[in-house]
Amino acid sequence: MSSKTIAVAGATGLVGTRMLQTLEERNFPIKSIKLLASERSKGQRLKFRGEDIPVEVLTETSFKGIEVALFSAGGGTSKKFAPFAAKDGCVVIDNSSAWRMDPEVPLVVPEVNSAAIKLHKGIIANPNCSTIQMVVVLKPLHDVARIERIVVSTYQAVSGAGVKALKELDDQTRAVLGGQEPICDIFPYPIAFNCIPQIPQSAAFEDDGYSTEEIKMIKETKKIMGDQSIRVTATTVRVPVRTGHSESVNIETCDKLSADRAREILRKAPSVIVQDDLSKQLYPLATTSAGHWETFVGRIREDHSHPRALNMWIVSDNLLKGAAYNAVQIAELL
Amino acid sequence: MSSKTIAVAGATGLVGTRMLQTLEERNFPIKSIKLLASERSKGQRLKFRGEDIPVEVLTETSFKGIEVALFSAGGGTSKKFAPFAAKDGCVVIDNSSAWRMDPEVPLVVPEVNSAAIKLHKGIIANPNCSTIQMVVVLKPLHDVARIERIVVSTYQAVSGAGVKALKELDDQTRAVLGGQEPICDIFPYPIAFNCIPQIPQSAAFEDDGYSTEEIKMIKETKKIMGDQSIRVTATTVRVPVRTGHSESVNIETCDKLSADRAREILRKAPSVIVQDDLSKQLYPLATTSAGHWETFVGRIREDHSHPRALNMWIVSDNLLKGAAYNAVQIAELL
Repeated sequence: MSSKTIAVAGATGLVGTRMLQTLEERNFPIKSIKLLASERSKGQRLKFRGEDIPVEVLTETSFKGIEVALFSAGGGTSKKFAPFAAKDGCVVIDNSSAWRMDPEVPLVVPEVNSAAIKLHKGIIANPNCSTIQMVVVLKPLHDVARIERIVVSTYQAVSGAGVKALKELDDQTRAVLGGQEPICDIFPYPIAFNCIPQIPQSAAFEDDGYSTEEIKMIKETKKIMGDQSIRVTATTVRVPVRTGHSESVNIETCDKLSADRAREILRKAPSVIVQDDLSKQLYPLATTSAGHWETFVGRIREDHSHPRALNMWIVSDNLLKGAAYNAVQIAELL
Repeated sequence: MSSKTIAVAGATGLVGTRMLQTLEERNFPIKSIKLLASERSKGQRLKFRGEDIPVEVLTETSFKGIEVALFSAGGGTSKKFAPFAAKDGCVVIDNSSAWRMDPEVPLVVPEVNSAAIKLHKGIIANPNCSTIQMVVVLKPLHDVARIERIVVSTYQAVSGAGVKALKELDDQTRAVLGGQEPICDIFPYPIAFNCIPQIPQSAAFEDDGYSTEEIKMIKETKKIMGDQSIRVTATTVRVPVRTGHSESVNIETCDKLSADRAREILRKAPSVIVQDDLSKQLYPLATTSAGHWETFVGRIREDHSHPRALNMWIVSDNLLKGAAYNAVQIAELL
């Protein structure tokens, strides 16, 4: 891969800083790097490969001479600035939801549908965190036994809601431990010692009662897997975990898969680590998955309530495979 | 109801103290009360209706002259002492799992199968906490539309594992907030800021990969609902919540139920409170359910992945409806 001129938009956020870290750790070949953010971050400097790099304000002309731009600056910013970047010949890999369901924009998880990258017209979308980790595990099973239906319930970490949400979790937790009332600013209810079945916490529900995150999981799964016939339902829940989304996933397949066969398939699957030895109390956990690139799966077992169904527990670092690492993987494939 | 002579076995535990509280708050007619516990609690005194009552050591002869005994002292203790109590003419209401699946022992949730109480032979079993709150909500729907299959994922509070587990959650949380390593004693992995898909944390998994708690939910649901044809699968998970179990429940029904019709049915259901107004961000939460006798349900919505399925979010206080309150309700019906 030849060295590239790179920009990171939203560089100061939780995912932005993970993107920089991942570019470093992957030894991504970089000719030059430009760090972009909103006015609020003006004057900040970030370390990259030992250098102190100033954060510049993102404008319509920021992308002249840039080959690849990693965006993690929110949907509104992506909607506004990605087209300018694309017009200047830059390829945008966007972590927001702004472009994901656009039929002209590939929605890519490299282990699942890397071929879609070639179809891009300047913008490639990075899927939703909870969707990425699920499809990485389910695609190899789908290829063998065809998944007909997915029922998923999520246990999502607070870091998915950003750095202020993480601080709110810590502040609220300290308050509760000290016998004080927790103060809510980001979340509508205390997230400390609680589970909130609304993601994102600020978005209205759809008329049919689904949250935005649930709709994302349903629609994005079909688009990435390239199969509109897969039926998906989801309940997405925020839990007081810092990093690492966990998912309880039930799949119904066309051909019966035993738990042993599923484990065998997943042991060979790219970026998947099977952690499934109950005699050693080995199963995936948010705390042990945080900081890793891979997606972890365990508690794979046959569902006796259906002739061809499996239950499993899927965990991954929502900021890495769920965001920054997946975006850098796409950049590597360009 | 005439006044009764009552004993509470395991009176010093989390559920035991809630039993005493509930007896007080319900103005249960009591002639005399005897508080029993293991050797460890010898010498302790507990307040009941303003009186200081000594805790006595539980023995085979503790139940002479006692009419109703509420047991919450663990499976081994129940297995050993409940038959002595029954032999002395006392009716045991047992909160452990020791007797639940015994075909001679009624397993009772008063809102669901109160008639079963009459069949007792001295022992009545109180179901598992996560099962109780689920069947209270599902029975009225089953009566109208016949439930064929249930897929449930739980978000269970730490108080379900006892008072030492609650202290471990607090200690670990303080450690993590202070940048220290959390120390694990009760749980095999940190429960602070984590989700553990193993309940109980100390019990081995079954050969087919299910945990004891999952098996309980599957078997007890069928027994309480009085319908072995209902197919159930469960994934049970401990989350860093103090009190209040939450459940993501997917049901497939024989007759199609709209979300509106389900809400209408549940608004009339005993002990159920529908909290389901998404325009006001109203849905059940562990923190708002703790301390209440009722079971809360919300996020009721049609599941587009199945022609006749609904998703819902069910929350209740695991120490009250999930344990102490359900036991006292049974005692009231005797």
